[in-house]
Amino acid sequence: MIYSKELKEKMAFISEIEKLKIVYRQNGVFDKSRAENSAEHSWHIALMALVFQEHTIFEKLDILKVIKMLLIHDIVEIDAGDTFLYDTQGKDAAIETEKNAALRIFGLLPTPYKEEFISIWLEFEEKTTPEAQYAASIDALQPLLNHLITAKENENPNKLSKSKVLNKKAFIGTVSNDLWLVAQDLVEESVTKGLYEKY
Amino acid sequence: MIYSKELKEKMAFISEIEKLKIVYRQNGVFDKSRAENSAEHSWHIALMALVFQEHTIFEKLDILKVIKMLLIHDIVEIDAGDTFLYDTQGKDAAIETEKNAALRIFGLLPTPYKEEFISIWLEFEEKTTPEAQYAASIDALQPLLNHLITAKENENPNKLSKSKVLNKKAFIGTVSNDLWLVAQDLVEESVTKGLYEKY
Repeated sequence: MIYSKELKEKMAFISEIEKLKIVYRQNGVFDKSRAENSAEHSWHIALMALVFQEHTIFEKLDILKVIKMLLIHDIVEIDAGDTFLYDTQGKDAAIETEKNAALRIFGLLPTPYKEEFISIWLEFEEKTTPEAQYAASIDALQPLLNHLITAKENENPNKLSKSKVLNKKAFIGTVSNDLWLVAQDLVEESVTKGLYEKY
Repeated sequence: MIYSKELKEKMAFISEIEKLKIVYRQNGVFDKSRAENSAEHSWHIALMALVFQEHTIFEKLDILKVIKMLLIHDIVEIDAGDTFLYDTQGKDAAIETEKNAALRIFGLLPTPYKEEFISIWLEFEEKTTPEAQYAASIDALQPLLNHLITAKENENPNKLSKSKVLNKKAFIGTVSNDLWLVAQDLVEESVTKGLYEKY
């Protein structure tokens, strides 16, 4: 059967991103049977962005753009893998790999999606627009909740402390007072559960 | 720490939907290590809906609504489980359970999200609007691709035939000529791989 080059390119992209479902993250899932993956994480944050959209400092947000951003922002991990937030060296090393991955994977798409997705991905990475800042704050909030729900009591394999975690997440407060309250509350609950050192 | 009732309700919903990541479907993932779950499936179809939006018979589509629909449509499976498409009895039995699940889970949210999500979920189920019909066609197309990519050669445990599959998917042709061509092509490739009987 023959169909257009444009459709074939879209199918190549849609087939390629199947692989994001086997890129695993540090946190787990509800029954502790396996690690969370970047595809389901992306689904979770897209829904969070929808319901928290009125809790930011911004007067106007293009919520469709935020959702697109969150749905595609981790696709580069198909080539680059997931880097643990607190692994600073790993984060630096990943920058070039992730950029090449964006060009390769979004480059599978025809125009205008190729250009749009590369541009939205870069916007997310640069974090200068309201949409990118809001998306980043949601992307930073979700792991706090997910970790609290799915981690076993008193498990802190990376010896994370409350102050280290709050320091990494503090930018949420520049985007949303409400979400920063939620973040601090999740960290407190996690300390109580023994997931972070108290100081 | 104290924050508003509205935020607490939103967090209750966001925590509850964590469980969709452990609702497993019939198909697998790329490395065949486990079954696909409904959260990552929802992520996949949201992105498909984005890039295929100009391939329908409809002049205008509210793509944000389509994406919301696809992100939330399977959340009811947290209570009802995933029902295999070809299990007709199971599908009928699930209707009431799924409706109650929608009321319970979307009901965790404050106004206006509670009403909006219940209404969008019902719209998807009723399939009378362009958005719901397009969303349903994408939801039906993805498993064909996913199955072709992730299934082992010559595995057809449910003795599915090409005609049975095409029959279940034929409504895609009423929404999009292009996507129906793609669907038929995926089925042909799957027959070649031994995943469906030829007749």
